[in-house]
Amino acid sequence: MASGKILVAQGGGPTAVINQSMVGVALEARRHHKVELVYGARHGVRGIVNEDFVDLTQETSHNLELVAATPSSALGSTRDKPDAKYCHEIFEVLRRHEIEHFFYIGGNDSSDTVRIVSEEAHKAAYPLRCIHIPKTIDNDLVGNDHTPGFPSAARFVAQAFAGVNLDNAALPGVYVGVVMGRHAGFLTAASALGKKFPDDGPHLIYLPERTFVLEQFLADVKATYARYGRCVVAVSEGIHDAAGVPMLGLLAKELEQDAHGNVQLSGTGALADLLCEEIRSKLGIKRVRGDTFGYLQRSFIGCVSDVDQREAREVGEKAVQFAMWGTQDGSVAIKRTGFYSVDYELLPLAAVAGKTRVMDEAFISDDGTGVTDAFRLYLRPLLGSGMPDAFRLRAAQVPKMAR
Amino acid sequence: MASGKILVAQGGGPTAVINQSMVGVALEARRHHKVELVYGARHGVRGIVNEDFVDLTQETSHNLELVAATPSSALGSTRDKPDAKYCHEIFEVLRRHEIEHFFYIGGNDSSDTVRIVSEEAHKAAYPLRCIHIPKTIDNDLVGNDHTPGFPSAARFVAQAFAGVNLDNAALPGVYVGVVMGRHAGFLTAASALGKKFPDDGPHLIYLPERTFVLEQFLADVKATYARYGRCVVAVSEGIHDAAGVPMLGLLAKELEQDAHGNVQLSGTGALADLLCEEIRSKLGIKRVRGDTFGYLQRSFIGCVSDVDQREAREVGEKAVQFAMWGTQDGSVAIKRTGFYSVDYELLPLAAVAGKTRVMDEAFISDDGTGVTDAFRLYLRPLLGSGMPDAFRLRAAQVPKMAR
Repeated sequence: MASGKILVAQGGGPTAVINQSMVGVALEARRHHKVELVYGARHGVRGIVNEDFVDLTQETSHNLELVAATPSSALGSTRDKPDAKYCHEIFEVLRRHEIEHFFYIGGNDSSDTVRIVSEEAHKAAYPLRCIHIPKTIDNDLVGNDHTPGFPSAARFVAQAFAGVNLDNAALPGVYVGVVMGRHAGFLTAASALGKKFPDDGPHLIYLPERTFVLEQFLADVKATYARYGRCVVAVSEGIHDAAGVPMLGLLAKELEQDAHGNVQLSGTGALADLLCEEIRSKLGIKRVRGDTFGYLQRSFIGCVSDVDQREAREVGEKAVQFAMWGTQDGSVAIKRTGFYSVDYELLPLAAVAGKTRVMDEAFISDDGTGVTDAFRLYLRPLLGSGMPDAFRLRAAQVPKMAR
Repeated sequence: MASGKILVAQGGGPTAVINQSMVGVALEARRHHKVELVYGARHGVRGIVNEDFVDLTQETSHNLELVAATPSSALGSTRDKPDAKYCHEIFEVLRRHEIEHFFYIGGNDSSDTVRIVSEEAHKAAYPLRCIHIPKTIDNDLVGNDHTPGFPSAARFVAQAFAGVNLDNAALPGVYVGVVMGRHAGFLTAASALGKKFPDDGPHLIYLPERTFVLEQFLADVKATYARYGRCVVAVSEGIHDAAGVPMLGLLAKELEQDAHGNVQLSGTGALADLLCEEIRSKLGIKRVRGDTFGYLQRSFIGCVSDVDQREAREVGEKAVQFAMWGTQDGSVAIKRTGFYSVDYELLPLAAVAGKTRVMDEAFISDDGTGVTDAFRLYLRPLLGSGMPDAFRLRAAQVPKMAR
């Protein structure tokens, strides 16, 4: 065969650094004399079955660098979750185009797609190298110290909470911020890195790794408000009751499900509004405000971790190197080797595909509404350099005049 | 008298640069040998009547600089809207402490408080210099080219829309982002500065300067979606029907009002959720997402305009200079003198107090759902340096293979 053609695609929710990985693939592949053409599929697997390809070898390295620094998936993405038939179509298109290496940048669902396509190629005895490149702000891929995209989203969440804490201190009340992350609490827990002084918020953090009990939540808010005269709360969109039913599901009449069977937890302010209404009505606190961080946290332009940028570039480069010099399909994974340094390894696709990682128990405080120093130590180097900082007046109190 | 005492306080909603103005007052006042003590009131006018003062002359200039660069009101703020009796109490406390100069950093309501306190002092023939220092992300103070705090919030909104546009392009659908600003559309209009390529969002912008008609809104979204296969919409929290009733009011059962009689438009995701539900049900579009930018847009740490920072510092400095060398009470106002340069003047308090500025007609496009180049030219220099930029792939389309 020796067509020298490779294909790269991006799947699932965009991140601030997913283009770094795509450009890492393109630029590294272009350095290999065996590679003739680097194709990009528009809108992930959907672009593959539709043969909607662009030729990245006809793109300048200057513009590729500019795109790498631009958030969201430049090739476009998709929420399609291919079944066996869909994966067979993918494979047929790859074969027709004589693609030799297939790189798919995505999360759990994307890794599962790569696994099935890899099996299709094996069955057909077609020499296709399939590499999954990790990406998700949820940080929920097993076998990875962390996933590209998560550090930048975590930085946004930490900065957002550092800011709303200051706002809440100026105009005291209760503030509830709802954070993405689905069934993993990492991104919500990142709010703790916005805390500087002991009485700073977030004072309470609710993770999907714990059962959410509304009465306990209200008692926690009440106690915090009594102590500080204010309360800043970080809540994961994925909080659920003891039966695993999402809190959002307990109140919404009709829940949209995507093609993966995932309930749509994002894109609505309903959870924050419900919790605020509970606080207002049950605790009688007047100033209660809720925000849902929504799409800002994954696509905001201008809040990115430089560590995340570099690693996202590297997983793309490493994917090509594993493909060129290795003999196996797999999923590139980040391993932490020092404080702070990383290396990359290629895990079997089956070890990653369709599995969900959640917060380690050692990262969650005993009371279940905070994080441990182990988590702070885990996350801090990922946030990168130049984190903004908050300072307070320490000026002396003036004695009151006798009236 | 010659106590050499001045007092500074911060009122209303915090901004990213309000501490620059407070520190501008403190540091400039400390350079005047006539000034002995610089007091700060905790939580605005409430701190005055409670005699809750800190001594800013016992604060290092280093820490003042760190606080200046920190968002939100370091002295604390208040939503109290003093009536005549409350203002009399303020004046009595100022007199008791022999305050000679009173500086209040705030928006419309704060300027009105300064006006009443100024009149109290005149009535009592007490030599009190009262200066209002402008601050509001809503940009709705009359007599000002723009107000400190607005440029940084506008930058956040522009960056947020630049990001969600990229997200929406990757995973097409309809996106609705609700922006603060009350009855002035400036902050919502700032979303237009996030647009780079002709087909970028926001494709539609709904301002409170125009009557909001739900049917027209749905027709606009439908036409945009038909044209681009996606649609990004910026909506002001203050949109209202022909009778002036807020759209949010038309759906919410009970609206919280603050002490100023202002309806609480912020702190709830209800408006975005309602509009999304209308789009889903009436237009049959499946992927519809809504975000309410909420408190992030005014308190996010790490998204600030350097132009805004410098001007916020200058209005504080100028306030002290007007007080020291001038002979009148007043409100410091920003005048644009070049592209781009500003100067400051002192307006009579009555010229600013309690009035609301809205978008100039020349800033709104004829169709009412966009902004003009005049607005882009007005806003661009305020956003400051180092705005992040977005780039696209321009790679060539690969021909489909015959099947």
